[in-house]
Amino acid sequence: MDENHRDFLRLFHEFAAYGAIADGGVNRLAASAEDGAARDHLCAWLRAHSFDVQIDHVGNIYGIMEIAGALSAGTFYCGSHLDSQPTGGRYDGTLGVVSACHAALAVRCAADAGRLHSRYSHLVVVCWTGEEGARYQPSLLGSRVATGGMSARDALAIRDTNGVTLGDALRAIGYLGRDTPPPPDGYLELHIEQGAALEKAGCTIGIVTGCWGAGKLCIAITGAPSHTGPTPMAERRDALLAAAMIITNVHALARDALSVCHSSVAQIEVQPNSPNTVAASVRLWAELRSGDEAALAAMIAGLDEVLNDAALQTGCTLRIEHSETRAAVPFDPAALAGIEAALSDGDISHMRLPTIAGHDAVRVQSVCPASLIFVPSQGGISHAPQEFTSDADMISGLDAMTYALLALLARERDELKREP
Amino acid sequence: MDENHRDFLRLFHEFAAYGAIADGGVNRLAASAEDGAARDHLCAWLRAHSFDVQIDHVGNIYGIMEIAGALSAGTFYCGSHLDSQPTGGRYDGTLGVVSACHAALAVRCAADAGRLHSRYSHLVVVCWTGEEGARYQPSLLGSRVATGGMSARDALAIRDTNGVTLGDALRAIGYLGRDTPPPPDGYLELHIEQGAALEKAGCTIGIVTGCWGAGKLCIAITGAPSHTGPTPMAERRDALLAAAMIITNVHALARDALSVCHSSVAQIEVQPNSPNTVAASVRLWAELRSGDEAALAAMIAGLDEVLNDAALQTGCTLRIEHSETRAAVPFDPAALAGIEAALSDGDISHMRLPTIAGHDAVRVQSVCPASLIFVPSQGGISHAPQEFTSDADMISGLDAMTYALLALLARERDELKREP
Repeated sequence: MDENHRDFLRLFHEFAAYGAIADGGVNRLAASAEDGAARDHLCAWLRAHSFDVQIDHVGNIYGIMEIAGALSAGTFYCGSHLDSQPTGGRYDGTLGVVSACHAALAVRCAADAGRLHSRYSHLVVVCWTGEEGARYQPSLLGSRVATGGMSARDALAIRDTNGVTLGDALRAIGYLGRDTPPPPDGYLELHIEQGAALEKAGCTIGIVTGCWGAGKLCIAITGAPSHTGPTPMAERRDALLAAAMIITNVHALARDALSVCHSSVAQIEVQPNSPNTVAASVRLWAELRSGDEAALAAMIAGLDEVLNDAALQTGCTLRIEHSETRAAVPFDPAALAGIEAALSDGDISHMRLPTIAGHDAVRVQSVCPASLIFVPSQGGISHAPQEFTSDADMISGLDAMTYALLALLARERDELKREP
Repeated sequence: MDENHRDFLRLFHEFAAYGAIADGGVNRLAASAEDGAARDHLCAWLRAHSFDVQIDHVGNIYGIMEIAGALSAGTFYCGSHLDSQPTGGRYDGTLGVVSACHAALAVRCAADAGRLHSRYSHLVVVCWTGEEGARYQPSLLGSRVATGGMSARDALAIRDTNGVTLGDALRAIGYLGRDTPPPPDGYLELHIEQGAALEKAGCTIGIVTGCWGAGKLCIAITGAPSHTGPTPMAERRDALLAAAMIITNVHALARDALSVCHSSVAQIEVQPNSPNTVAASVRLWAELRSGDEAALAAMIAGLDEVLNDAALQTGCTLRIEHSETRAAVPFDPAALAGIEAALSDGDISHMRLPTIAGHDAVRVQSVCPASLIFVPSQGGISHAPQEFTSDADMISGLDAMTYALLALLARERDELKREP
C-alpha cells in the first residue's frame, strides 16, 4: 500500500461520517442535508486538487480536468453517486466517486509525465444526483437527465413522500446549479457488486457485460374508508387487503417464471392508516427484473391479471400510476475487451458477469460507450449497513480503475464506438 | 322543533369546524391541536351553563352539576368523546357529548321545578380522552383509565407513531389535569349506530343489549434489509411479504368462521420503506371481532397458525408485540328495561340491537350499570366523512336521551345494580 492508496482509503472512509447510522451504515437520501454535507466534502477535495467544479440543473457535480498533451478533443467521464438508501451501506456509489477522484490523479500524473497520449482532452469526475430512487423516483435520476431521458424541469418537480420537490431540496443544500458541462464521449464506473459471484469465484474484479431488464411500477389502489368493527365484511372495499393480495402475487410472478426473475414490493403508503378504519387508499411500488426479455415481458403481462384479480376480490379500483420499463442493456463490447486486456496486463484477476441492479453506467450507455467494473461484496449484502468490501479489495478496485481508464483514454476512439 | 332543539343542533354543528376536512368530515385525533380547540369549546359551554369543570390525569373532561332536591347521594355520568379518526365523520362521539349537555339542562330544569326526584345527587357530562384508538392505542383510553383498566401513568407514556407521548400531547393542549371527580354510579351514552339496522327497520332508537368481543393485536415482523435487485429470491427475508400473507390470512379467518365474525388489518408501518430495499421490519395492527365467544377464540387461535405460516415461508421473525382481548359485554338489563319503558311512555320507536364497535359505555359497564342508545347512521357509513345522521334523528336522539336519563335518575338504585 503506497501513499496514494492510503489517501484514497482515508478519503473513502471520511464519507461514511455523512449520514452515519448504526452498524457502520449511512442514511444519505438524495438532496438531504447529509447528502449536501457529503457533496461539500467532494467539492472541497476537487477544488483542492485543481479540478474545475461545475453543478448542472439537477445537481450533478462535475470535477473537470484538462488532460495534458491530448491528441484530440473529447470528454471522458468517470464516477458514480453519493446518495444512499435509508438503511444503506457506505460502499454503494461512494466507492465509485472516490476511486474516480484518485484514478483521475493517476491520469494527471501519467499525462503530465508524458506517459499517456490521450485521445480525450478532458477527464470529468462525476457525482450523479439521486441514483438510488429511494427518496425520489425514478432511480438513476441525475444520469437520466444528463443523457436526455428526462427534462431537468420534470425532474425538479418530482416530490418525495413529504411533498418536497427535488428542486426545493437541491436549493436548500446549495446544489441547484446552472452549469452545462460538455457531455460524455466515454464513461467508466466502478461499483461494489451487490451480489456474491466474485466472492464465490475468488476473483478480484468483475467486468460487467450488461444489465438485466426491469419494470418498475407505482400502483394506486382506491378503496373506501369505513369502520373496521360494524361494517359488514361483504360491504368493505379494503385497499390494504387488495395491496396484500398484490404483494404476494407479485412475489409469485418471479417464483413461477421460466427463467431466473426477481420481483419485489418494498414501499407502501396507506391512508388513513388507523387501526380502526378500513384503508381507503394505498400506493405500492413494485419491481420486476430479469435478464431474459421474454420472461420479463411475461411478468409484466402477468401483473395485469394480478391487479384485475385483486380488484375483483376486494371491490377496489386499481390504477398503474406510473411505470417504467427498461430493456436489458449490453455494455460497449469494445470497451469491455479493452478493459480485459488492461487488467490482464496489470495482472489483476477478472471475470465477466452481468448486473441485476441498475447503475448510472446503464443510462450513460444510451449516449456513448460506457463500462462498469465491480469489486467484491462480502456475502453479496447491499442496501444494508452490513454491506462490506475490504480495504484490500477497494485498493485492487482503484488499481483496476486506473489501468482501465489509462487504456480507454489512449485507445483509438473508433474502437470504442457502440456496436450498431 | 323548539328553542332547545335549535340550540342543541347549533352547538352540535359548531364542533364540526374543529379539524374540518373535505366532504364535511373531521380529522380530530386525540390530544391534537384540533381536539384541544374542540375541548375548549366544550369547556366554555359547560362553564357558561354553570357546570363545575374538572380535568383528570388523562385529560377526561367532567362538567359536574348538582341535582336539586336529590333523595340520596351518588353520581350519574352521561357523555361520549370528541376525538375522531383521521378521516372521521362529525357525528361519532360528538353527538353523544352534545346530547349529554342538553339532556343535562333538561334534567336541571325538571329538578329545579320539582318534577324530578333524583336518587343521584350529581350529574356529570363527561368527555373521554382517546376513544378512537387512532392516534393512541388501545382505544377507549380515557374511560379505561377512569374505570381502573390502566394506570394514568401507563396511559400518559403511550406514544403515537411520531413518538409523542399522550402526556406531552395533553400538556401541549392544556388538558393534563389533576382533578379526581367522584366515580360513576350509573352511565348513559348516546351514539350513532355505525351500522344500518335501525335504518333498515325504520326505527328511531336502538337500545344496545351488549358489545361483541374483540381481539386487538400489534404484530412485529423482523426481516432483513437487502437490495431488491440482485439479492437472490431465496435469500431474502422480506418483512412486507410476510405482512401481506398475514393480512390476507387474517381476512380469511373471519370468512371461514362458523359464526358471523369480522376481521381487519388497517394500519401498517414499514422500515425502511424504500422501493429498492427489501423491507427490514413491519408492524401490523389487526382486529378480530365476534359476538360468539367460541368463534372469537377460534379466530385468535387461528392467528397463531397464520403467523407461523408467514414466518416459515419468508424466514422472518414474528412477534405479537401487544394484544388485548375484550370478552363480549352485556349492558345492564334492568337499566335497559327502564329505558325501554321510558321510550314507550314517550312514544319514541325503539328496538334492541347489539353493538359490534366498542364504546366508552363498554368500559364503564365494568364498574357500574351502563346503558348505550343508538340513533340511525345513513347507509351504516362510519369512520368516513360521508357518515350522516339527519337533524330530525338527532333531535329524536336528544329526546330519547332526556326521557331515559330522567327515568334512570328517578329509579330505585337497587333496580339498577348489575346482575350477578
